[in-house]
This record gives sequence, C-alpha cells and structure tokens, in this order.
Amino acid sequence: MHSTSELIDIALKEDIGHADITTENLIDADSTGTGEIIAREQLVIAGLDTASQVFQKLDPEISFCSKYSDGNTIEPGKVIAKIHGRTRALLMGERVALNFLQHLSGIATVTRSYISRIKGLNVSLVDTRKTTPGWRVLEKYAVRVGGAHNHRMGLYDGVLIKDNHIIASGSITRAVEKIKRNISHLVKIEVEVSRFNQVKEAVASGADVIMLDNMDVDQIKKAVQYINQRAIVEVSGGVTDESLVLLAQTGVDIISAGALTHSAGSVDISMNIKGSRKNNVTF
Amino acid sequence: MHSTSELIDIALKEDIGHADITTENLIDADSTGTGEIIAREQLVIAGLDTASQVFQKLDPEISFCSKYSDGNTIEPGKVIAKIHGRTRALLMGERVALNFLQHLSGIATVTRSYISRIKGLNVSLVDTRKTTPGWRVLEKYAVRVGGAHNHRMGLYDGVLIKDNHIIASGSITRAVEKIKRNISHLVKIEVEVSRFNQVKEAVASGADVIMLDNMDVDQIKKAVQYINQRAIVEVSGGVTDESLVLLAQTGVDIISAGALTHSAGSVDISMNIKGSRKNNVTF
Amino acid sequence: MHSTSELIDIALKEDIGHADITTENLIDADSTGTGEIIAREQLVIAGLDTASQVFQKLDPEISFCSKYSDGNTIEPGKVIAKIHGRTRALLMGERVALNFLQHLSGIATVTRSYISRIKGLNVSLVDTRKTTPGWRVLEKYAVRVGGAHNHRMGLYDGVLIKDNHIIASGSITRAVEKIKRNISHLVKIEVEVSRFNQVKEAVASGADVIMLDNMDVDQIKKAVQYINQRAIVEVSGGVTDESLVLLAQTGVDIISAGALTHSAGSVDISMNIKGSRKNNVTF
Amino acid sequence: MHSTSELIDIALKEDIGHADITTENLIDADSTGTGEIIAREQLVIAGLDTASQVFQKLDPEISFCSKYSDGNTIEPGKVIAKIHGRTRALLMGERVALNFLQHLSGIATVTRSYISRIKGLNVSLVDTRKTTPGWRVLEKYAVRVGGAHNHRMGLYDGVLIKDNHIIASGSITRAVEKIKRNISHLVKIEVEVSRFNQVKEAVASGADVIMLDNMDVDQIKKAVQYINQRAIVEVSGGVTDESLVLLAQTGVDIISAGALTHSAGSVDISMNIKGSRKNNVTF
Amino acid sequence: MHSTSELIDIALKEDIGHADITTENLIDADSTGTGEIIAREQLVIAGLDTASQVFQKLDPEISFCSKYSDGNTIEPGKVIAKIHGRTRALLMGERVALNFLQHLSGIATVTRSYISRIKGLNVSLVDTRKTTPGWRVLEKYAVRVGGAHNHRMGLYDGVLIKDNHIIASGSITRAVEKIKRNISHLVKIEVEVSRFNQVKEAVASGADVIMLDNMDVDQIKKAVQYINQRAIVEVSGGVTDESLVLLAQTGVDIISAGALTHSAGSVDISMNIKGSRKNNVTF
Amino acid sequence: MHSTSELIDIALKEDIGHADITTENLIDADSTGTGEIIAREQLVIAGLDTASQVFQKLDPEISFCSKYSDGNTIEPGKVIAKIHGRTRALLMGERVALNFLQHLSGIATVTRSYISRIKGLNVSLVDTRKTTPGWRVLEKYAVRVGGAHNHRMGLYDGVLIKDNHIIASGSITRAVEKIKRNISHLVKIEVEVSRFNQVKEAVASGADVIMLDNMDVDQIKKAVQYINQRAIVEVSGGVTDESLVLLAQTGVDIISAGALTHSAGSVDISMNIKGSRKNNVTF
Repeated sequence: MHSTSELIDIALKEDIGHADITTENLIDADSTGTGEIIAREQLVIAGLDTASQVFQKLDPEISFCSKYSDGNTIEPGKVIAKIHGRTRALLMGERVALNFLQHLSGIATVTRSYISRIKGLNVSLVDTRKTTPGWRVLEKYAVRVGGAHNHRMGLYDGVLIKDNHIIASGSITRAVEKIKRNISHLVKIEVEVSRFNQVKEAVASGADVIMLDNMDVDQIKKAVQYINQRAIVEVSGGVTDESLVLLAQTGVDIISAGALTHSAGSVDISMNIKGSRKNNVTF
Repeated sequence: MHSTSELIDIALKEDIGHADITTENLIDADSTGTGEIIAREQLVIAGLDTASQVFQKLDPEISFCSKYSDGNTIEPGKVIAKIHGRTRALLMGERVALNFLQHLSGIATVTRSYISRIKGLNVSLVDTRKTTPGWRVLEKYAVRVGGAHNHRMGLYDGVLIKDNHIIASGSITRAVEKIKRNISHLVKIEVEVSRFNQVKEAVASGADVIMLDNMDVDQIKKAVQYINQRAIVEVSGGVTDESLVLLAQTGVDIISAGALTHSAGSVDISMNIKGSRKNNVTF
Repeated sequence: MHSTSELIDIALKEDIGHADITTENLIDADSTGTGEIIAREQLVIAGLDTASQVFQKLDPEISFCSKYSDGNTIEPGKVIAKIHGRTRALLMGERVALNFLQHLSGIATVTRSYISRIKGLNVSLVDTRKTTPGWRVLEKYAVRVGGAHNHRMGLYDGVLIKDNHIIASGSITRAVEKIKRNISHLVKIEVEVSRFNQVKEAVASGADVIMLDNMDVDQIKKAVQYINQRAIVEVSGGVTDESLVLLAQTGVDIISAGALTHSAGSVDISMNIKGSRKNNVTF
Repeated sequence: MHSTSELIDIALKEDIGHADITTENLIDADSTGTGEIIAREQLVIAGLDTASQVFQKLDPEISFCSKYSDGNTIEPGKVIAKIHGRTRALLMGERVALNFLQHLSGIATVTRSYISRIKGLNVSLVDTRKTTPGWRVLEKYAVRVGGAHNHRMGLYDGVLIKDNHIIASGSITRAVEKIKRNISHLVKIEVEVSRFNQVKEAVASGADVIMLDNMDVDQIKKAVQYINQRAIVEVSGGVTDESLVLLAQTGVDIISAGALTHSAGSVDISMNIKGSRKNNVTF
Repeated sequence: MHSTSELIDIALKEDIGHADITTENLIDADSTGTGEIIAREQLVIAGLDTASQVFQKLDPEISFCSKYSDGNTIEPGKVIAKIHGRTRALLMGERVALNFLQHLSGIATVTRSYISRIKGLNVSLVDTRKTTPGWRVLEKYAVRVGGAHNHRMGLYDGVLIKDNHIIASGSITRAVEKIKRNISHLVKIEVEVSRFNQVKEAVASGADVIMLDNMDVDQIKKAVQYINQRAIVEVSGGVTDESLVLLAQTGVDIISAGALTHSAGSVDISMNIKGSRKNNVTF
Repeated sequence: MHSTSELIDIALKEDIGHADITTENLIDADSTGTGEIIAREQLVIAGLDTASQVFQKLDPEISFCSKYSDGNTIEPGKVIAKIHGRTRALLMGERVALNFLQHLSGIATVTRSYISRIKGLNVSLVDTRKTTPGWRVLEKYAVRVGGAHNHRMGLYDGVLIKDNHIIASGSITRAVEKIKRNISHLVKIEVEVSRFNQVKEAVASGADVIMLDNMDVDQIKKAVQYINQRAIVEVSGGVTDESLVLLAQTGVDIISAGALTHSAGSVDISMNIKGSRKNNVTF
C-alpha cells in the first residue's frame, strides 16, 4: 500500500536481479556482521526509515539503530546508523540504502541552506512538481525535513490555472467561475499570471492564490501591494541562490523553487561492514 | 516487460492521481494542440523515446517529432521536439516528460563534458551502481549517450570481490579460487584492492580485473606497471573535475565515477503548448 | 494507469476464471453477433464508457454504439447500446458490463431524484467517503453524472478536522493553527462541529469550511446566521428523503449525503444477444 | 494470494492516497486509542474478519475483539467490536472498515429476511452472478452468512446453457451432447428453458439441472411435475418480496435471486474513537 | 487478464533481463529477418498461439504463419511456422518461444500415443493436478490437444473427497451429506476409495463419481460390476505404458494419469533465422 | 522481490482459485495435523525450501522439518520432511509442494547421474537456456544441486555471438571488436562456431570462450588442440547418454546439455497426512 515500499522493491530488484553472485558464493548464509553508515561531509539527514526498510526487506531480523532523526545536522565522520544482521543482507542492501540516503539527504541539506537564508522573513519556501519520476512522495518529504513546505502533491489535490487553461476558457474570470462549479469545496484555486492586468482580473475572479510567474522584483512588489491580502501571493521561476533573498523581501507569501528537488545532488555517505561468524570469531 | 514503461506508469500515477482536476474541468476532451519542448541551455539530449512514451500513454494517437537523436548537442532556444495531440494529454504529460528529459539529459551532458577532457587518452570512463533507485537502466543508458561506458548493471552480472568478501574467504587467492568454481564461465572476476601487496596477490590469483580503490597517483602508476596487462586495471574513488585527467594519465584502463549519475543535476528544458479546437479556431 | 481499467480486469477475472466453459465449448471462436442493452425501468444512465471497455478487453475489434450519453434519462424498453463483435466476447462480457451499468446508473438515478427536489434552492448536494471499496472514482463520477457534486476524493485532498483531531490538539484553534503550518497552501481546512460554541471557535480559527454534524434545523439556522459568509457551511448526517428539503432551506451552502452511494441499489438493465455466423446464416 | 486482501489494499489506497493529511499533521505517531464499532439498526453482521484485516494492514500490532461472529443478529446500540491500537490507524482505517462491514452486513441482513420467509419449505435460496464487480467472493460469502446458498462462482465452475448456446448448437440435445464430450466429469450441466417443450427436451438430453426462466407459477408447477426428480429444478427471474413464497411452494428445488447482492443497500454502522496518550493521560 | 500472457511476460523477463546485450550491440534496430521453426522429430504440435504471442510482445508488427494447427502431427524436417519481423525480436524471442513449444508439444505427443492405444475402448483418459506450477491452464490445454480430457482444473471446480476428508467427517456417508448441503448444485462430488466396502458406502451415499485408488485389476472389475452405472467410475494410480490397456479393459469410465503432464519431456524443435536489411540486401 | 515467491503465489492461485471447496466444507479451520513427504524412488532432493514456503504461505505458523538438505541422495521409502500445522493448509498445499519438489528433484537426480559418469575427467558440465518458462532461477539452482554448473542466466549476463550476429557484423572479428567497445568490462565474450576456420578466427579475435556447435569428436579434438588454452572451449549439441563421456574425453573445458532441464521428468514423491483435533483426539 505504501509506495515507498514499492520503490524499495524495484530498487532491490534492479540491483540484485537473480542473485548477488559475489556474495552468495563467498559469504556464508548464517554469517552475521555489523555495518556503520558514516557521514563523509556535513549534511542534514533524511531517509533513515527508508534505509532501514531496505535492510529489513533482505533480513527481517536485522536491527537498524541511529542516534539521529531525519532533519538532524550531522558532522563529517560521524556514524549515522549501525546495522546488525546477516552479512549477506548488509552487503546486498548497502548500495541501495546509500543511494536512497544520499539522494534524500542531498535534498534536505540544500533545502536547509535555502531556509537559513530567508530566516526571519515572513515568507514560506515550497517545492514544485519538478521531482524525480517515482520519487514524488519521498522527495517532498525530504523538502519538509529540510524545513521548507510542499506545494500541491500532484495534479489531483489543487487547482492551478495556467495560460492554456485561461485561453481555453476565454478569460481568467470564466476559468475560475467554471472550475468553482465543478471542484470539491475543499480545494483552493490558484491562477498563474505574468502581467499586471492579469493580477487585477485574478483578484476580481476570487482566486484563492495568485502565482506571479517570471516577473521582476518591481512588478512583484506592485502586485503584492495591489493584491493586499485578498489572495495568497506566490512567486515562481528564476529562484536562484542570488535571487532568493530579494524575492523573499518583496512581501510575497510563498516562493516556489524547483531546484530543491531537481538539482540538489547527493551528499557523501559511506558504509563500513565488519563481519563476525556465528561462533563469534571475528573475521 | 520493459521497466522504463513501468517507471513511466508510476510517474504518471503519482502526478495525476485520480484526475488532473484543473485540466479535466477546463479543457474539452476533444481539443487538440501542439507542444514544443525547448532547450533553455546548451545540453546533450537523452530520453527522447522516454518522453515520447509519456505522451503516448496518455493519448495513443499523439505524434512526437524531433530533428534530434539522443546524444546530439542542442543549443539554447532550439526546439527539441514537437508534440501534437489532445490538449489534455499535452498538459497532463508535460511535467512528467520534462522531469525525465531534464534528468537524463543532465547525466548525458555531464558525462559528455568528462569525456571531452580525456579524449585521446587510452582510457575508458564508466559509471557505478550509485544510481537513483528505480532508474538504473535509464541512467546507465544516459551515461552511454554521453559517451562513457557502463560498469556491471548490478550485483548479478559481474563479480566484484571487496574487502568483506576477502576477509570472509581468508585471502584474495582463496576468494578467487572459490568463486571460479561456482560462477558461469561467461562472467569475469574483479578484485578491489587498496594496498600494493594486494595488487600482487590479485594478479597471482588470476583475477580478470583489478580495481585500485582510493590509491594516490603514484601508487596507481606503480600498480599499473606491476600488473603489466595481466589484468584490466580500474581506478575508482575520488574522481573529480580536478583529478580526472591526472588519473587518466596513469595508464589505467578504466576510470569509474559515481558523480556521472548521482550528482549530475537536471538541465533546463521547458514546454510551450498551443491549443486549437476541432473546428480549427485557434485559441 | 487508470484504476477503472484495473477494476474491469479484476471483474472479468473473477467472473471468467480459467475459462467460460459453456461458451468456449459451444460457440465457435469466429462466430459474431449483436447484443442490445435495454433499459427495463426509467433510469439515468451512467457507465457507458466502462461497459464499452469491458467488451473491448475481450475483443479489441468490438463496436459499442449508443444514442445516449451518461446523464441522459432513458425510458423503459429503450435500447441503451448496441454491441457488435465476437459472440464469445458478448456472452463472456455481458454480466460484468451489466453489473457495472446497473450499479452506476442506480447511483446516478437516485442522485438525480434528490437534485430535482432541491432545484432552485441555493445549495449544493455532495457525496461522502461512504463508497463501495474499490469504486471510489467510479461512484463519485456517477454522482456528478446525476447532477450533484463531490466532497473530497479521499483523506489526501482535503483537510477535515473531526472530534478526535480536536481533542488531540487541545482545541479547534490549535488544531487549525497547527495544520495551517504544515499543509499545502492549496488545500482548504474544514472543521466538524456539533455545538454552537464550537461554531464560534471554528469561525474565529479561520477555518475555510464548517461542517455542522447532526444538528437540528433550528441549530443549523442559528449557525448559518452566525457564520454569515465567513466560512462555507456544510451540513451532514441524517439526510433522508424527508429531511432533504428542510435542510436545503436552512441557508447552508452544502448538504452531504452518504445515501447517494451506499444505498442506491441497482437499476434493471438487461442484454439480448443475436448471433450470426461468418457465412451470414443467422442463427 | 487472497483476493480479499487485494481489495482491501485497493480500498485503502483509494482512500488514503499519498497521506491522510489531517491525521498525520494532528495526531502523534505514537498515540494509541480505542475504537468501538456500533450497530445503529438491527442487522446480521458479516465481514468482521475483513474489517479486522483493514486495521491490521495499517498497524500490525492492532487488536480487534468482538463478542459476535459473522451471522449473528445484533441489536441497535450494541458494540460490534472494539479495536485497540495506534490512533492514526484507527482514524485512517475507520471509513474503509465501515464501508466493508456496512455493505456485507446489508447483504447478510436481507438474505436472512428472505430465508426466514421460506423456512420449512423444502427449497434452497441461491444467489446469482449479479454481484458488485471486484466483490464476487465477498458478496457470495455474505449470502452464505445470511443463510442462503451459492450458485456457481463464475463462468468457470459450472455449465449453464442459455438460449444463445442452444441456438448456436442447433438444439438443447445437441448442446448437452457436445458439452458432455468436452468438460470435466466433475462439472454438472444446467439448461435454461422458458417453454414447456424445452423442459421435455432438457430432461431427455440428460441435463443435471433445469432452470425455468420467467415462467408463471402454473407453468412452473407443471414443469416440476413433469421433471419428477429426473433433474434438479431451479427457478429464476422475478423473485420479489411478494413472489418468493409462491415460488417456494411450487415444488422447485432452488430459487435464485439477484436482489440478494445487487440491491441490498448498506446497514447503519458507526465507529467511536477514544484516544489515549502513551503516558496514559486520556484525552 | 489472460494468465498465459502473464507467463509469457515472466518468461521474457527472466531471459532478457535488462537487455540482450549481444543482440542489441550487434544487430541494427531496423534490421528485419525471417525465422523458420522446424520439427526435429515426429511430434504432435501444441502451443502455436503461445509461440506467436512471444514474438508479438517483442515486435507488434511481426507476422507468424503456420500451415498447421495445434493437434496436427508433424514429420521431422518440416517447417512448423515462419516468422517475419525485426531480427532483434526474432533473436530475443527464439529461446522462449521454443521452450514453450517443445514443452507443450511434448505433452501433446505423449498424450496422443496413450490415446492411440486405448482407441475403440469405451473409456476416457484424463489428466491430474500433477502439472508444472504456473502452467496448469497451458498443460491441460496440451492434454486436450493430444486427445485426452481434463479432470477438474483445481481445488475450486470439483469436489474430491479423500481419506483425510472422510476421517475428519466420520464416514463417507457423513462427508457426502455435509458437502451436499454446502456446495453449489452445479458441482459434482467424487469420492476416493481403496477398499470394496468403501465402494459400497460411496454408492449408497449418492456420490456422483467414485475414484478407485491403487486397486488391482480384479478389484477394479468387481467394483465396476457392483457400481453398475450408479456412479461414474474413475481409476487412478499406477497408470503406465504396460497397465494402460489392461485398466481400460476393466470397464471403468475414466483413467487418470499424472504422467501426461509431469514426465512428458520436451520434443526437439529448432529455429533458423535469416536476416535481411531494410535495403533488401540479404545477409 | 524473490521470483520464487511469486511463482509459488501463481501456483497456489491456479490450484486453489476462489477456494478448496472440498476442504473448506469438511475440515474445521482449527484442526491441525502432520504430513509426511516420502520418497517413492531413489532421488537427489532439491527444492526443500520452496516446498516449505508453499506451506508457510498458507499457514504462517506451520513447521517444516527435514533431516536432509538439497543435494542429499534419499532412498525410497524414507521420510523427506515432516510438516505440522493446520490440516487445511496441509491439504491445500500438498499438490503444489509436491509438484515443485518432484520437478526440481527430477532435474537434480538426472544431473547427478550425468556428473557421476564424467567424474575424474577435467571437464565441467553446464546447463543451457532450455528451461521451463517461469522456472529459470529454480531449474538452474537444481542443476547446481545436482553437481553441475550454470551457463549464463539469460541474455543479459553474458555475450554469446551466434551465426546471425556474425553475419550481421560481417565477420567474427568485427563482431567481437564491436561488442568489446560496448559492453561492460566484466562480461566475457563467447563465440559459437561450427567450422574449423571459424575456430581460428575466433581465437584471433580475442574471444574469451569458443563454443563448438555440433562438431564431431575428431573436429572437437582438433579444435581443442589448436585453441591450446587461448580461450575456454565449450562443446554443445547432441549431448546424450552415449556421447557424454566421449565428449568429455576430447579435452574441452565445458559441456553444455539442454537435457538437464528440458527432459528430466519428475521423480516420485508423495505425502501422507494425519490429522488431529485441537482436543488431541486423533482421527
């Protein structure tokens, strides 16, 4: 039922295939060992539970222990988690578990750094739908771990009226009117605008949220002033390291940034494994 | 049967859920339109076929046309592909198709830039298993598109004997011996070593490939000289923008770099949609 | 990707199993025929596309033709649709197609009769989550076909704070505050209340929608007056044939009724099949 | 392997989607509580095990306790079951569990009332294939819980020769002959007839069961007399509250009624949840 | 929906995995060719449609042509089928298609030889549930192709009361009585007996079929005489090349033989492929 | 994740379908019992773990105990394993578990007999891709249990250049060259040849393995002499009981034989079940 579980299954299948031919031929089935997952750079950890699930799918008896929780900052060299169980499971799950951890922590780490720069400003940072296919729920989770918020999860849980929708409906007014008649009363309506006269029409139409798309800082300020709390104001597009604070100071309510998910890169995390046999002879 | 097809299904499901509530309420089911996918920066394109499949799953009648093939370098502002079909399918597939294209082209673009710097040197650049879970086949494809080669696909199609395997077996010699007895005669054996005396033992054991792990340039040169064509030599670890050429000049056969896949970031690609109604009144 | 398609697969599998042992032994594989689906009582039709898909899964060459669209009222005795194709597919799909049509049209027919009774009153009728497991999307579609609207699709696309959520948070105020910090800015917040002082707190908390649960008509009127457009007002519980109009006249914005989906019963629809052999000798 | 388990998965997925956004934001993950499922009208309970599975899928540690078994009559106001476990699981499973219980108990309750009216008459009441797609096994189970029997499960476990099969074969005689040559010797053959001379031919053909379709009471009596134990006699069609006893008194062996499954409606069952925190402070 | 299609998918996936690395690197994607499937010994062909599906899954444009139908005897050296399409699809589907054809034709060939030896005797030869897991429907089909009949398909479409069932119920009489009350009136009841007094009880109980288990020829004859058409008589166990005709002459109605499916072995079939390029230059 | 588990699910589903109608109606749900799996002929056992899994899927509490391990030779009449748990699970899993055991042990037994005849000769016996669709991993496992080795698992983990690949590439030399450029450095290249001049070209091309296809013993010897350790030599085709030793004495490194998997037939294994009720009254 849980899509993360399905993604882990896919990941293990694509890595292991019919067998880990090295490990199954060289490591005894009943050999046990301990693995240490170690931070190789400063990072905000995300995905501990996912990494734990990876190993548990390979050995239900495995134990996965960590002194940290998702969202903690971890210094380089620190042991993130200790895993104890069958050596085969440790070796077969290592790469997949690290691939999850490195990717999710990469997102959390980048998000945290963005957040730290707009601290104190009355603005919310949110992600977009620019996520890695198959990873929507996980990456949006990592964004929250990093301290930002989520925009809609997908096309199904929020209305965002874009230029094509407006053209097809004739006008912003008619688009908002039409969609109000058809959607659940629990869903808000956001309209994407790129010119000031559209801002006016969007406010008049009763849109709940107005997204200012690729406007410059002066245009944004003017729009915020005009809207004057009658709708939530979101700014989108061109959010970079440089522009972030400037945008945050315009008075908008929300800044959405695709870079949180699509370009975070992975952080450096590795795993050491120490084996021991049943008879406690360390090897 | 094709896992790319399954990943596309997952991606569409996680984005669309029960419905694109904006589009289904505002765009007529029989409205058709044309979308243009446009490069926003210079890039090596990868994933055209995947992007095409995204739209075809939403509208089997859709046409997806491109003047480019995977591997072509595309200049900013150029139209990568034109898609014609139902407007709903264009709007519902846009984000997912771009998410695939941006990620895969990101990998191909980075790989191409690495490759260009070791051109003329007699060395092969390969990827690793540090791929995004669920994306192994696609990302390794993008690496080939960028001009590099693939290491093993997973734990199932190549033997890589690491330190834990060596310890569990007693020695490199015994590990290689044991595994030779058990695996298919079509699979090669690679041994990971980190010290010079291990290099010697690996050669003596008859390993087909020797991976020098985290050795410095001088150690690598010494190992290459010692091995002297008796095994393929791979170097791994610490491959960065700076170290790449130095490593390539050591005489090793193969350099493996996780960064090709785990930290490529996405390139900037967008899509414009122009609708037209059945009655040919452009809107 | 479409869950309706999956439900049809399940339905065909549970009915046909390893084979339709009667039909496969008595009807030639190349025999073709025509089926007529006929209304046996007055009904509002819903599910034509689903019924068509049932037959197309059994014979991709089949044609399914109807003079009606979902939402049309059909008189008893009228031919709803004609299906032409392999006789085996007609016989094997008949029961499953009718089971879909009868159930969905039952919901659309009941919904239409509810709607007809509140016509002219400024109130919206919506469904609930009391749907048949596996049928959420289809049944909510049939409700729209019948002329009513949908409440949230599930637990994921709208916030509804109930008594347990309130108790766990300490108060309505704190619950609304807490959830506002965490959810997407595109999702509205509804609070379920059963006493007047809760109505006051809900309004003050900034809830977007207030659900009056099991209040009597006088309490509802008082609440509506107090809320005075500061939130959308929904009334729920005890919606019956008798109470419907009374509730609609209280001034609430929305009435939600589980009976639309959980107790509609099926309408009477049957199918006649006439075969013809390849050589055009009618049998 | 068990299709009920799959249907529960589908039901939870369609209700919960990516998350219960209210509960996950307001209820602590480690909060536990107790739910009481309560009968709101007199009913014959069916589906206790299914309801229990719903909660266990959300929290494997949950306990589900009932003083009743499927088939018991429960008076209004009585507690059907108590569930203890994580509050989140209680809240997220509540609606799905009730949807199963209400639907299945609706069928069992209606079936029981039919059965009570033909008590003492030497006739068997059976269901049909007019079941809710996806629910065949569960609904036929609820029919048995209510005291009636099952007709064949699907097209695969019994032969029922209908008019189209007869026409395609040339005659009842030839149809029965042909199918006897091809099917397993463990499957019986039923022939559907609507005229008296067909009854004669069906008996002569050696059919194991004869279904009298839409005949009036006099015709049925005449057929029963003629058949005189040489085949099992089933009557089908037009079974209503009024006609049931009349049909049961004609001497037929079996009455089949689609209404048991397709129009039972759901019975009224609700759930109250009381939370408690880890530290035993009831809230 | 069709389990054969699923088994083909599994078979292709386990053979091809992530890629046919030889073919994809050496054969152009647009190269086409022709394959000939050839009988290497005399055989009864079964599985032509399955083999055709294998290739069509790899190349929907492929044509598969045969002068034979399942059940035909084919002499060694004859071309069973010609397949024309993409060379890659021919090479990638070859082994899987042959594996299906060789296995199914092996069963059909053995079955035909059994059948030929009991020709003219008034007895039916049937299979058992001793089939290859995953292949039930296909192997039972091959048995019919070979000229024998099927016993029940599984545990769900026929009652077979064995010793454990009898012991648990107290006696044959009570077992038959109990099950008659519970199962569909369309399912027959078979009782397995191994002693003559059990034969008597089985007849008296009203069993539809009596299976004589591991009795010798004289006991069987005595049982057949006693039963005297009051039940269908099946003999099972110890059916070998030698015993087959002797058993057939005892007067039993049915002989069941597990060897038809579990020990048939495969027949020798091979495939030759001739390629041609787009430009019609044969290679 | 484990395909054996999936195959067991399929096998149980195809055998049990919606229910074991005999057992569920005659055996109490809480009745427990003990089953003994017994060898009916001398055999090499394979598949104990698979058989155990069959029962555990039906009753997680079941115990499966054996004095043997896969690969042991078992004498006729010996008890292979004892299973204790719910009687229903024993009866419902019996046939499927035996079908797995009989098939896999059949392969292990045949393989062992082949191996015993080439003992002492310096040659390896391997299987082929002529396996039962769906069973690749299991059957290759049984081959190893029997003492032989595995060829490549599928088209994905080894390169085998056949005549069509050679023709398409122009020559063996060009085929080997081309593929070396494209595949992972961990995969070996095998070339299939049928004439002596091809042997020469294959050696010169640097192929890792050379497969001599359908050559006679003298040609094989000549080839072995010529190759002289420069490549691994495999012989394939026409491996029969008679030819096996002759081929083994030619000096080749590897003999591959399809018969190990495609024609092993099943060995005779049966199961006795003894029930006991909760109250310890043996029945």
